[in-house]
Amino acid sequence: MRVYEAPGFPNPARIRIAVAEKGLTDTIEFVPVDVPNGEHRTAAFLAKNPTGTVPALELDDGTVIAECTAITEYLDGLAGERTLTGRTARERGVVHMMQRRAENGLLDAVGDYFHHATPGLGPDIETYQCADWGEHRRERALKGMEYLNDVLAGSPWIAGDTFSMADITAYAGLGFADFAGVGIPDALTHLHDWRARVAVRPAVARAA
Amino acid sequence: MRVYEAPGFPNPARIRIAVAEKGLTDTIEFVPVDVPNGEHRTAAFLAKNPTGTVPALELDDGTVIAECTAITEYLDGLAGERTLTGRTARERGVVHMMQRRAENGLLDAVGDYFHHATPGLGPDIETYQCADWGEHRRERALKGMEYLNDVLAGSPWIAGDTFSMADITAYAGLGFADFAGVGIPDALTHLHDWRARVAVRPAVARAA
Repeated sequence: MRVYEAPGFPNPARIRIAVAEKGLTDTIEFVPVDVPNGEHRTAAFLAKNPTGTVPALELDDGTVIAECTAITEYLDGLAGERTLTGRTARERGVVHMMQRRAENGLLDAVGDYFHHATPGLGPDIETYQCADWGEHRRERALKGMEYLNDVLAGSPWIAGDTFSMADITAYAGLGFADFAGVGIPDALTHLHDWRARVAVRPAVARAA
Repeated sequence: MRVYEAPGFPNPARIRIAVAEKGLTDTIEFVPVDVPNGEHRTAAFLAKNPTGTVPALELDDGTVIAECTAITEYLDGLAGERTLTGRTARERGVVHMMQRRAENGLLDAVGDYFHHATPGLGPDIETYQCADWGEHRRERALKGMEYLNDVLAGSPWIAGDTFSMADITAYAGLGFADFAGVGIPDALTHLHDWRARVAVRPAVARAA
């Protein structure tokens, strides 16, 4: 299997962590895509992933699976017990809900701020920007942090008692917030404590 | 189980269809939420779903699962064979990828157009609008339709040989496009043919 990615970018970080958590690091070739220079918009890459996003997982039969949730579902279902996406119907429902909240309310919100209200990846890549929308999404990211802090006041992990892909999404979201200059308020102590617990997980430390 | 929803709205339609496809209609109480008058933003509803969105599924133990993908995962895992979210790891990866593409590239894109570049649900509900962003997302929805049309040129359903939640998302997206006045180009014949095939599925016809 190959993962097309951009080292250091937030969505690729989600899959690096998922791969490490599943113990699959040695089975995957990581192929860098030069996003700052637009390689993700070349015909060659769009033939693999028409959405033009990284990461994208290419199976040995040529099938390409893009979108982090989809890639994580694939990896988690490969072998052994599901550890990232939930085992029972109820767990799966809650994990997917919290994953989506962390994605739309934090990681993607920070991304929208970065790509719309800052120079982002520069004028060659940011061919459409809407600063007003970007600022709105920055506010959304801060609300998302507050929400996750509230959740973590009563739960060790974002989707309950077990580390899951919801934690991975939120962790990558905070990394993106640092990069984009969206400060994480000091008052969100549960969020900061949780982040420190995620950072010392062996797989997360290895993937970083 | 209860589903809090708004009859006729696009995301609730996804869950109505999923419930009918799974043969669960008689096990679920559908509870209307008065979205046009802001009931989804009352403290009572936000206590159930802090994101303030419909649909939201409430289990008999009080657990609330929001976000359509999460609700569909729950329902599909309840009993019997998975029919909407994929059985093998590969199927699950492809279904989730195509679901997300149909969501971000069509249904949510139409929603952003409707809520930002039209009066949407009126000034009491649309407390932040960004028309430029809404128009950009309308263009994205049209590109999303073209992409799905290309996919359907070579495949009976959006994620391959089997009807799945990706089809449900796209079908609801086209319904929303009709409502919001985003015309579906006549040239997209594969998309129109697929839509007609979805519409006559017994569960879809029953859910409408």
